[in-house]
Amino acid sequence: MQETDRDLLPEGLEDRLPLAAAVATRVMRSALDVLDIHGYDRVQPPSIEFEKSLASRMAGVQPRRMFRFVDPASLRTLALRSDMTPQLGRIASTSLAAAPRPLRLCYAGQVVTIKGDGLDPTRERLQLGAELIGMDSVAAAGEIVAVAIEALRAAGATGVSVDFTLPDLVDTLAAKALPLAPDAIAAVRRELDAKDAGGLVAAGGAAYLPLLTAIGPFDAAIERLSAIDAGGALATRIAALRTIAARIGKAARLTLDPSERHGFEYQSWFGFSIYADGLSGVLGRGGSYTIKSNRADKADEPAIGFSLYPDTLIDRLAEAEPRRDALFLPLGHDPVHAARLRAIGWRTVAALGEGCEERALGCSHRLENGEAVPV
Amino acid sequence: MQETDRDLLPEGLEDRLPLAAAVATRVMRSALDVLDIHGYDRVQPPSIEFEKSLASRMAGVQPRRMFRFVDPASLRTLALRSDMTPQLGRIASTSLAAAPRPLRLCYAGQVVTIKGDGLDPTRERLQLGAELIGMDSVAAAGEIVAVAIEALRAAGATGVSVDFTLPDLVDTLAAKALPLAPDAIAAVRRELDAKDAGGLVAAGGAAYLPLLTAIGPFDAAIERLSAIDAGGALATRIAALRTIAARIGKAARLTLDPSERHGFEYQSWFGFSIYADGLSGVLGRGGSYTIKSNRADKADEPAIGFSLYPDTLIDRLAEAEPRRDALFLPLGHDPVHAARLRAIGWRTVAALGEGCEERALGCSHRLENGEAVPV
Repeated sequence: MQETDRDLLPEGLEDRLPLAAAVATRVMRSALDVLDIHGYDRVQPPSIEFEKSLASRMAGVQPRRMFRFVDPASLRTLALRSDMTPQLGRIASTSLAAAPRPLRLCYAGQVVTIKGDGLDPTRERLQLGAELIGMDSVAAAGEIVAVAIEALRAAGATGVSVDFTLPDLVDTLAAKALPLAPDAIAAVRRELDAKDAGGLVAAGGAAYLPLLTAIGPFDAAIERLSAIDAGGALATRIAALRTIAARIGKAARLTLDPSERHGFEYQSWFGFSIYADGLSGVLGRGGSYTIKSNRADKADEPAIGFSLYPDTLIDRLAEAEPRRDALFLPLGHDPVHAARLRAIGWRTVAALGEGCEERALGCSHRLENGEAVPV
Repeated sequence: MQETDRDLLPEGLEDRLPLAAAVATRVMRSALDVLDIHGYDRVQPPSIEFEKSLASRMAGVQPRRMFRFVDPASLRTLALRSDMTPQLGRIASTSLAAAPRPLRLCYAGQVVTIKGDGLDPTRERLQLGAELIGMDSVAAAGEIVAVAIEALRAAGATGVSVDFTLPDLVDTLAAKALPLAPDAIAAVRRELDAKDAGGLVAAGGAAYLPLLTAIGPFDAAIERLSAIDAGGALATRIAALRTIAARIGKAARLTLDPSERHGFEYQSWFGFSIYADGLSGVLGRGGSYTIKSNRADKADEPAIGFSLYPDTLIDRLAEAEPRRDALFLPLGHDPVHAARLRAIGWRTVAALGEGCEERALGCSHRLENGEAVPV
């Protein structure tokens, strides 16, 4: 199809057309409904804010990844949100500062980055998530992981798997059982994350080599991690992971990758990634973190939450989406019959003149004598 | 509450907090469901596009009202959408160019302007609407007005009223019954829109004075318009409005203001504004228009549609929103009971440690022996 320049969308930005948009609407509603019935209150922050506000409350949000522009009203820099989590942190520590803790909030919306991520040019994605604020206990972690899995399953994901990590593992071990020179910590973390045994030894982290064996299906990997943990420095973390895993039960396949750091730059003791059958790449991430207070009279708050990026799930479900039934309403039809059939779930498509024909309009049925008749 | 600069949102941008966000979610779902069962397929365009693409397909979208910034990928100017209608036009004439007509599409999302509107500082609003593409007949107009009213009523609006207008009235009359000098047309339109009888005479539009009496409740006003229309130049328009009004019946109060132009700069023969009880200002607008083709092998397309801006409705409904029941799940509760109660509609809030207390968490009920007991 010949198209002029004016029709094209910028790189990494796409329209969702009818079939996929219908699936997206259903996926988002189903997931939000799960968050809602578990007591998570939705909030809706604006799509643009002061850049400082979006970037300052949490590590891990990079201003350089956001579209930024000057606000003629304030003469300050605004940015399109690239992540809704900092907005939830802002709301929790300002408008909802006095609300009881734990505070359960959820959100859904579009987020935009100025550049795609690696080979993926996508610059706008749907984000949906939940945050539990004021607490980052094992019980809180168990609820967050369970709710994330339930939301994804309700949205249509199958074969959900969750990969646990301990984002501050190296710091914890370096402080107690396996001392490291302060300037070696970053390198050891990096080589562990890359699963590079040679690099790990070269970085002075030979003592950390056994961690590379504590990776894989949860039950076996946690046993190996436990065996390594001679000094007991990780005992409470290991017990916490076992408790969370027991809570999940058979709702998802569980794996462990205790030294995974990529994507968990701002998490504290606990992190997890979610995957599902047939979807390449991670579907979402979560974990514990700290909401920084910016007021002298208010302490930082622990929090735990997750974010899902359902675009790949939506695309996959759209491929298998069956054609919907639709009822053609011929010219001169009785609107009372049409309204009655809509009220019991029919989707109607009305003729608006000669030449409107049921097959052309993709209808499966036709209204005849007050009844839906297959065409 | 003492807040630092970092907490504040830019002028005209706001968070929707739990109560209002729950109402917003319900309002948008209810309205979209009505559009869906009438055969309108949702599409989801991106929140940013090339400025040219947003501004060029229709008159009435002003680039100066949009946040604009340079795309580092294309080095072209992007803009945050200030109106989703042009995006629907783009989709209809590109990706869906080959889809059968009439094409029924709908949409919902956030739109942003760089400045508020007059005294209202709001810069981000929800927009929701439907477009019927390939047709702008009387039957199409009747369906669009009826669906707009039904969507608003489903969303919770009461006392809906619709004000009809004829956007090209002056052009039609000037071409036939009441000739005007070409350079007087704009002034006559402006004075009629302002309902300024003196100004109208001064602008050379004395012959148009009787139009100022054809304003008000529909049945009486259309009679007066008919009486004025000596030459019959408006006969088909008057018949069309009567047909649309008959279709609406008692679903809404109808009024006529045939020379209203403000807000209908890009409409053709038909326009309407929607109001509801207790809401100041217009809740939405609609009408017929033309989607300009940008391809030599493709003609312009007639279209008709409407946009609703439900923010004021959401705020109003949130004021009267009752407290929701919520079921507290004490520590050590049986998750099977909790899941069963969620499945039949309960919203649950789980204790996550000592100190979590049902009253503090706003719960109306407590799980005891597998049953919900009021607290």
